[in-house]
Amino acid sequence: MADAESGAVALVAAARAGDARALARLVSQVENGSPALRAIMRAVAPYVGHARVIGLTGAPGVGKSTVTGALVRVLRAAGRRVGVLAVDPTSPFSGGALLGDRIRMQDHATDAGVFIRSMASRGHLGGLSVTAPQALRVLDAAGFDVLCIETVGVGQAEVEIAGLADSTLVILAPGMGDSIQTAKAGVLEIADLFVVNKSDRPGAQDVVRDLRGMLAMGSWPAGGWKPPIVLASATSGDGIDELAERLDRHHAWLSESGELGRRRLARARDEISAIATAELRRQLGIGLPGESGLDELAGQVAAGKLDAYSAADELLGVRDRG
Amino acid sequence: MADAESGAVALVAAARAGDARALARLVSQVENGSPALRAIMRAVAPYVGHARVIGLTGAPGVGKSTVTGALVRVLRAAGRRVGVLAVDPTSPFSGGALLGDRIRMQDHATDAGVFIRSMASRGHLGGLSVTAPQALRVLDAAGFDVLCIETVGVGQAEVEIAGLADSTLVILAPGMGDSIQTAKAGVLEIADLFVVNKSDRPGAQDVVRDLRGMLAMGSWPAGGWKPPIVLASATSGDGIDELAERLDRHHAWLSESGELGRRRLARARDEISAIATAELRRQLGIGLPGESGLDELAGQVAAGKLDAYSAADELLGVRDRG
Repeated sequence: MADAESGAVALVAAARAGDARALARLVSQVENGSPALRAIMRAVAPYVGHARVIGLTGAPGVGKSTVTGALVRVLRAAGRRVGVLAVDPTSPFSGGALLGDRIRMQDHATDAGVFIRSMASRGHLGGLSVTAPQALRVLDAAGFDVLCIETVGVGQAEVEIAGLADSTLVILAPGMGDSIQTAKAGVLEIADLFVVNKSDRPGAQDVVRDLRGMLAMGSWPAGGWKPPIVLASATSGDGIDELAERLDRHHAWLSESGELGRRRLARARDEISAIATAELRRQLGIGLPGESGLDELAGQVAAGKLDAYSAADELLGVRDRG
Repeated sequence: MADAESGAVALVAAARAGDARALARLVSQVENGSPALRAIMRAVAPYVGHARVIGLTGAPGVGKSTVTGALVRVLRAAGRRVGVLAVDPTSPFSGGALLGDRIRMQDHATDAGVFIRSMASRGHLGGLSVTAPQALRVLDAAGFDVLCIETVGVGQAEVEIAGLADSTLVILAPGMGDSIQTAKAGVLEIADLFVVNKSDRPGAQDVVRDLRGMLAMGSWPAGGWKPPIVLASATSGDGIDELAERLDRHHAWLSESGELGRRRLARARDEISAIATAELRRQLGIGLPGESGLDELAGQVAAGKLDAYSAADELLGVRDRG
């Protein structure tokens, strides 16, 4: 245990000194749920809180990875160190790795000020809700100024990503469904900023107009933050400087209003809760295959002999007696 | 408690006799996490297992609710009673209700053989993973032959929906992003059937071709199920008869191969696990606002004084001593 402790401290120190391989090892250990994870997080704790976290979300096809790549370029030009986590909660055949690889290979392969990693977290006990915040803390401790976390899809995973970010950027594009569909996806609730990408395509102005209409329906208290809409073309770079500037303004508002502290407190709450829940599930054998007590109860529920609540009571009762 | 028990038994009996208001009350009690929930699920347990559950998923804009509506029409014409749950895991301003309302008002307002309900489950302890399967069980016990569960978006929620269904139908449409994006969304892993909707639009054949190409990359064991691709236009009704027929074939395959039993067993496992986890979280005060122990620990983690794992240990330790 003392070995794990000193090993973790040494790796964290190396990563903080700019050793990219040490950093990659740390992130892998977080992703794989390494036995050293606890030691790593203890070693990392004193150094967190510097980095700004930007969440990037949007439906498939809107150009999330292109926007992320363009934003990374602008941030690098301003001298900021940038970490990117591309999260794919569904872990398909080939998906997860593509995002990060595409950016990495095109632009930033030799830039030590950029760290890019794709993560697929299905099957991990506690999943994304445990892994992603820990990975962000490792990158934060390693001294990155801005962390981008990007996810595929619209739905629960997206809402979770918003919970991890200081600023959540929702990306839309023309031709991706009508405005009612946009409202359905719940983007109004999680967006701090909107990017309408592919501004050169027909219909981009319609998307902006629909968004404005929906924002007009919400109520924005004095001194509150009303999400701006940035029209951009990530492939040409148009609008990305404005996006970076709007993100700076949002960060300033977060700090001045006290909202930054509130968001980070809520994030820590969620993080502790997710870890505690995963630990409880592990103790119960829930989520691990082949746990015979659960299998037998599931058989009774599937056969209509028992309801799921009574089965859950029995499962918990077994633990209390054990 | 005896009152809750007899009240639940009476409501379930009324719903099984065709009383639509009794059924609506039961589903509302499930959705709201009513104190009567446990009594209801006990009363329902002996009657479950008849209904086939069809999951419908796809990105915003592909026409999920139109396909659902068209499928309901075909199933009704064949004399089957159909229940529809439209689930919106992100609960936006107005979204959740739209799907169900649109179908209900257009076609099936006066048809006692159709029950349609929109559910938004954010904020509920345990969320969708607890509420949706219980609502499905209530509809199953009420004697519906087919249950359709439809969700917005692509991501974790979609994967969860697939876990609830006997047959998962992934809907695509031309003009919704390129084939790499389709692969990213993880649809190959969860789909039992593909519907390419809007068959009259340009590009529909390209979507079919891309899907075929991706399916050709997978491996399909002898006697296994290879997802068919149905080209359809839900607005005109083209292809929906074929879809219903393919769904019947999939159900026959599920029964003959033993896969139906395996899926329903896995579903019961997930259901029990979700309830047990929610109960543990409730005992810990996790997920409920204002729990001071968690707030204080979160403050220490946000300030870098403590790591989240040590905080989770303290949270669990508090409980063990209490």
